[in-house]
Amino acid sequence: MAVSTTAACFHLHRLPIRPTHTANPLALTFTLRTKPSLYNPLYNSNTILHAPMVTTSAALSKLPTAIKSSLIDPDGGTLVDLVTPVAKRPALAAEAETLPKVKIGKVDLEWVHVISEGWASPLRGFMREDEYLHSLHFNSFRLQDGSVVNMSLPIVLAIDDQDKVRIGASGDVALQGPSGHIVAILRSVQIYKHNKEERIARTWGTIAPGLPYVDEVITNAGNWLIGGDLQVLEPIKYNDGLDHYRLSPQQLRDEFDKRGADAVFAFQLRNPVHNGHALLMNDTRKRLLDMGFQNPLLLLHPLGGFTKADDVPLDVRMEQHSKVLEDGVLDPKTTIVSIFPSPMHYAGPTEVQWHAKARINAGANFYIVGRDPAGMGHPTEKRDLYDPDHGKKVLSMALGLEKLNILPFKVAAYDKVVKKMAFFDPSRADDFLFISGTKMRGFARSGENPPDGFMCPAGWKVLVDYYKRLQVEEEQKMTLSSN
Amino acid sequence: MAVSTTAACFHLHRLPIRPTHTANPLALTFTLRTKPSLYNPLYNSNTILHAPMVTTSAALSKLPTAIKSSLIDPDGGTLVDLVTPVAKRPALAAEAETLPKVKIGKVDLEWVHVISEGWASPLRGFMREDEYLHSLHFNSFRLQDGSVVNMSLPIVLAIDDQDKVRIGASGDVALQGPSGHIVAILRSVQIYKHNKEERIARTWGTIAPGLPYVDEVITNAGNWLIGGDLQVLEPIKYNDGLDHYRLSPQQLRDEFDKRGADAVFAFQLRNPVHNGHALLMNDTRKRLLDMGFQNPLLLLHPLGGFTKADDVPLDVRMEQHSKVLEDGVLDPKTTIVSIFPSPMHYAGPTEVQWHAKARINAGANFYIVGRDPAGMGHPTEKRDLYDPDHGKKVLSMALGLEKLNILPFKVAAYDKVVKKMAFFDPSRADDFLFISGTKMRGFARSGENPPDGFMCPAGWKVLVDYYKRLQVEEEQKMTLSSN
Repeated sequence: MAVSTTAACFHLHRLPIRPTHTANPLALTFTLRTKPSLYNPLYNSNTILHAPMVTTSAALSKLPTAIKSSLIDPDGGTLVDLVTPVAKRPALAAEAETLPKVKIGKVDLEWVHVISEGWASPLRGFMREDEYLHSLHFNSFRLQDGSVVNMSLPIVLAIDDQDKVRIGASGDVALQGPSGHIVAILRSVQIYKHNKEERIARTWGTIAPGLPYVDEVITNAGNWLIGGDLQVLEPIKYNDGLDHYRLSPQQLRDEFDKRGADAVFAFQLRNPVHNGHALLMNDTRKRLLDMGFQNPLLLLHPLGGFTKADDVPLDVRMEQHSKVLEDGVLDPKTTIVSIFPSPMHYAGPTEVQWHAKARINAGANFYIVGRDPAGMGHPTEKRDLYDPDHGKKVLSMALGLEKLNILPFKVAAYDKVVKKMAFFDPSRADDFLFISGTKMRGFARSGENPPDGFMCPAGWKVLVDYYKRLQVEEEQKMTLSSN
Repeated sequence: MAVSTTAACFHLHRLPIRPTHTANPLALTFTLRTKPSLYNPLYNSNTILHAPMVTTSAALSKLPTAIKSSLIDPDGGTLVDLVTPVAKRPALAAEAETLPKVKIGKVDLEWVHVISEGWASPLRGFMREDEYLHSLHFNSFRLQDGSVVNMSLPIVLAIDDQDKVRIGASGDVALQGPSGHIVAILRSVQIYKHNKEERIARTWGTIAPGLPYVDEVITNAGNWLIGGDLQVLEPIKYNDGLDHYRLSPQQLRDEFDKRGADAVFAFQLRNPVHNGHALLMNDTRKRLLDMGFQNPLLLLHPLGGFTKADDVPLDVRMEQHSKVLEDGVLDPKTTIVSIFPSPMHYAGPTEVQWHAKARINAGANFYIVGRDPAGMGHPTEKRDLYDPDHGKKVLSMALGLEKLNILPFKVAAYDKVVKKMAFFDPSRADDFLFISGTKMRGFARSGENPPDGFMCPAGWKVLVDYYKRLQVEEEQKMTLSSN
């Protein structure tokens, strides 16, 4: 540590630190298995009892590098949990009433949710300046013990000049959710400049107008950022009928233990599941079984926070995912469907690291990465915003993700010969039809059917019905606005 | 290491790796001292014989963190040297003639110089894509042994479509300098996309028009980058009368050894030295002596590559620095003046890491960092491009710079009471006059004298004479263009 770092780094003192776990690939499984499960699983647990992982060097050699452990430590060693215990809530609520209040937006509340449950472990609140700079310049935190954890997105809270004046010299601040309720206290706050241009340029690699998260959250935000330690009054709920899908990292870890998983592979998505995805996920399970794992589980983990307007909304996606499981395209016995509460940045190689890191904290030790993860079209130019290969490459080299096993996405496409989704075979390229997300949404919007075998019929119907409703709504709006 | 990293990281195989050296703070001094000095020192060596450093815990406790070693290992363990031995040059030159040729610019040649002498160790050539992505996203390289070295600036070579076609499938390419001579061979090349927008945004934190390095080197550059292993035909020389000041990292290390330095503190600058700087440098030496070092040396290390048009040119600065040493404002016996051949990015917190990292490779184990290092005004807005404190903060937390001791700049200003430069005392703030670089250049340009004691008279005269010449030249140009 260099001479002058003491002052700059002291906020990291609060990060809980534990040396990374032993090299014994089985040790962790048992330490994790001590906590009882607290909730009902969404799908029946299977009855396979936990047995120690059987790996032989022959089996392991099928993957380019060695498997680290059957399950995985949270970043920083301890899973962060910032939800106040029930007994202490009344006193905290009373204290919060006495504090300066800052009104936060819908997406800020999603971040409160994310931080409070430990998805961003070891982060314990909105970033103070040193954490922000670590994230912006190194996509990672260096902890006090010298170890490095990944932290690619700045998780920050913006306030405006009036907020800053109102807070004054107060050390603690109450955060008031969009509905007006106080949701949390931010302690030992630090206020620093919000240089939006630099934040956007370093996070997205562009400052072109039209980036969805920037438009939604940053452009009109205040010129200050406020960091501090978060204490959440009660678990964040959305009351949208989907809260039972929102398992915390601890709940997921408990569920994996309960089901006796000896490997968990996470699949991040914000789109409907088609049979190509399913093929990939089923194939991954098969590969893990071949490697000697006895009970690999799939964490099908749709992103539930902010998404751009033309993405399929969460409730429709969850219904579609249910159909895929009901139809048996994915096996409910070896799949856990849960919502990842993070908002979406569409920041490509920078964001995919966050997507992977958060799944480490939820206990997944394998992560499937696709082409152009968290990517989108450039907002003002006719090209992809990111090189479609960079996400996978950057994820593979990312600091602090060394303990996660990255599984690159195999390309699946519609095989016109066998009339189903299959892994692309370049030797007979003409037999394959690529159906992009945009094309799929186009089919669904126009009511046109995709080729047989592209998606299970019940899942497809969910999408078609959604676009029908949307069309009716749009027509009504048009009629209203033209009156 | 995650499953898919093998392919993405394989280019790093070529980086030379050695575990970081022992914790014994003296061990390194002796390993470094085995190499004989190869050149004449610029100033007389002092006669103090090397004696092991005396440090007591009381002395060390004056600095916030412990001192690592009296001198310091190059990044990656071995100093890179890519200059071909004399005997092999004819064969290499003959081979180069047979290869596809790429014409490089003035600044590219400065980078060839920088890379070839090992300032960027362990980098051995212009970056291939994985190195570029490491640098862009993590400001660092993770080496094969898991250790991390700093690498904050993408050191890349752009080529255009015609170059790419001409290179075709050739593995090796000859680099032709601005004068037409072949200067180097780039081996096992890899060509990849040059996404200028992303490169600029992630390096500078803005894409505002008017960034000097961008205007000079990137805007009109080709849309491809070419990486590979560099082999330089002979040492890069500029024949500008200043080459004897351009000591390589190895030559500097040899000189430090020859002079028996037990600490070397580097001062990066691209401006004339005023008495405030001198005060700081002399004070730093005093502090190091107080800590128990017996022979701390100052590396006064002006940047010699590309600078923006309104900076004082290198030859004028070197003359000014000479006067400062002749006048005894800095002590020639404990000072080494040398030129750092890197071009300037003006990329603030990102670039200051490069400035510090390169000095590690040159053997400096203390680095003085000022306010707003490598900063400038925002090109289109009325504000500093970077928060003036961020450079120091980011440097303190930078990955791969842990072994370097960072010394934050104490603020010096003109004390009107004692009529000299002194460390700013906030308790009598009104007694102090701050003279910025812009103000100083203004004085010199207008021929007005700065307050007595601001700069040694002979050094000041160098600046005044320069601006007089400049004014005459400008008037001549005006006259010519108005005729």
